[in-house]
Amino acid sequence: MTSPTLPALAALGEFGLISRLTAGAFKHKSVLTGIGDDAAVTALSTGMQLLTSTDMLIEDVHFRRVWHDPYRLGRKSLAASLSDIAAMGGISRWALLSLAIPSDLPLEFLDEFMRGFLALASEHDVALIGGDTCSSRAGLTVSVTAMGEQYPDRIVRRSGALPDDDIWVTGTLGDAALALKLLENGEAVSNELLSRLLDPPPRISAALALAETGLATAMIDVSDGLLADFGHVAEQSAVGCCINLDDIPLSPAFRNHAAQHSVIPHQMVLSGGEDYELCFTAHRSNRGKIADSMKKCGNAVTRIGIVTSFSGVTVVNRDGSTYSSQHDGFNHFT
Amino acid sequence: MTSPTLPALAALGEFGLISRLTAGAFKHKSVLTGIGDDAAVTALSTGMQLLTSTDMLIEDVHFRRVWHDPYRLGRKSLAASLSDIAAMGGISRWALLSLAIPSDLPLEFLDEFMRGFLALASEHDVALIGGDTCSSRAGLTVSVTAMGEQYPDRIVRRSGALPDDDIWVTGTLGDAALALKLLENGEAVSNELLSRLLDPPPRISAALALAETGLATAMIDVSDGLLADFGHVAEQSAVGCCINLDDIPLSPAFRNHAAQHSVIPHQMVLSGGEDYELCFTAHRSNRGKIADSMKKCGNAVTRIGIVTSFSGVTVVNRDGSTYSSQHDGFNHFT
Repeated sequence: MTSPTLPALAALGEFGLISRLTAGAFKHKSVLTGIGDDAAVTALSTGMQLLTSTDMLIEDVHFRRVWHDPYRLGRKSLAASLSDIAAMGGISRWALLSLAIPSDLPLEFLDEFMRGFLALASEHDVALIGGDTCSSRAGLTVSVTAMGEQYPDRIVRRSGALPDDDIWVTGTLGDAALALKLLENGEAVSNELLSRLLDPPPRISAALALAETGLATAMIDVSDGLLADFGHVAEQSAVGCCINLDDIPLSPAFRNHAAQHSVIPHQMVLSGGEDYELCFTAHRSNRGKIADSMKKCGNAVTRIGIVTSFSGVTVVNRDGSTYSSQHDGFNHFT
Repeated sequence: MTSPTLPALAALGEFGLISRLTAGAFKHKSVLTGIGDDAAVTALSTGMQLLTSTDMLIEDVHFRRVWHDPYRLGRKSLAASLSDIAAMGGISRWALLSLAIPSDLPLEFLDEFMRGFLALASEHDVALIGGDTCSSRAGLTVSVTAMGEQYPDRIVRRSGALPDDDIWVTGTLGDAALALKLLENGEAVSNELLSRLLDPPPRISAALALAETGLATAMIDVSDGLLADFGHVAEQSAVGCCINLDDIPLSPAFRNHAAQHSVIPHQMVLSGGEDYELCFTAHRSNRGKIADSMKKCGNAVTRIGIVTSFSGVTVVNRDGSTYSSQHDGFNHFT
């Protein structure tokens, strides 16, 4: 069918492009057949089950080329899926990457994108085993599938939260949303905030520590905002929750911004997406073990509330009054 | 980030849309956690390895809404990936589907698309276990990942062809390319030809029979054209081939068209993509067994040439002279 003309890409051809883009991909012994056959062949570890997650990133919907440098965009494209596998307690092993490439995209952009993608893959021992490349009529589209594995009894689902469990989050919330807001307003953004939006680190060591110790009863990654994401846990566990607004961990950069403007943008903390922190629940008798475990793997962790037997996601202010929020997460279609 | 407004979709919300689209998805005992958690959890059969393939379909690059009705587009979106798994001898088990949806796409289009996708999935016992939905700035983008499994010794790669092996293809070649050409020219297209372009059946029963009997030494599906695709087999097997032009199987509809125009469009036969037939190699002593096996599973199969020890993909005419072709497959970037 018709395709836009991509001069540099046309000269390379699809297979030349694939060779160029995947030159930095590393091999892993679990990969029996990687890129270059009809399908990849991989071997799971004995006794483990397969975990699979996929994410699509669309130019001018999920990212903008003026804001997102290609290296960090490559990292973030993979990070989103690795974060999902981690949020199940899974060990990410393999990734697929599909790219729909617009005619105005410089080949150097793709090179840098791949350098970032493969750098994050290498950091987490994830092998790129396949994908697809084609031309796009408008904008770069990135589709990533990550696959991982884990022993059945270590997999952590959204459905295991129990009444009276503590609710924990890793790191800090709201930074990515604040960075995006500042970019949209044309305001100055600190490097600290910017990197939380452009290169969010998936909390893999924390997730694996929780899976191995069995401390988390339910887990999710905060990609659509705390309220929306914990809402899924609550729904699937048939519980509710009470979150203390003041306990939600904020970064120094976020606090600085709040102090300068004399207001904490709670909406960003509660409903801002793309933080890719982990939110999990655990029995209250395990507080010490969780603190120790997270310290051991170098992850900050904070208790922010409690699971309730009655349904509903409630946020309370310092004085015990209920905080009311109009927004409950990112809706792609509004 | 910014999203186009999709009134009907906005009212549903992302999770309402996902519920609507996946309402027809069926459960399978190998699926421990399907849609609705951070990642899907599935169990491979004991002793089998994982096969993975992914394909992206872009509006106005791979399909046009004026030609491709949504039901058959849904089927074809899955068929391309199932065909890849089959071409390795794999048994498809699970699929992921991501959709980037433009604001002008009626919800009914998506409903019909899903009806087609899930119908083909059900025919081949493939469970939809996850995906992603988001808005698109321009055109529908479909990304499908199919996963399957197979015992290691039944997996058929591109690299196993041996000199003097026969080269076989299932079904007929060139139909999809001819249908596309007629559509592009605004000419009448028979239903027979049209269905080869819009709803190509992946040759799954043939592929599995070849995997189980161990008769095929190498296999590929013809998605980019026979010459390009067999070129991959030749390259990866470090062999060449000699294909007899007159032996390539043509459909009655294709022959009719050729007769009416007094010329056989060989280019379409050799380099037309999207036929999704299987091309495989096998030892010449197995001719009878292959014919029997394919007959048993109801697939037409034809011997079209021979693997050579010297490299190069050669096509010969009836008189033994070499056929020369300028094009060797579909290049996405020209």
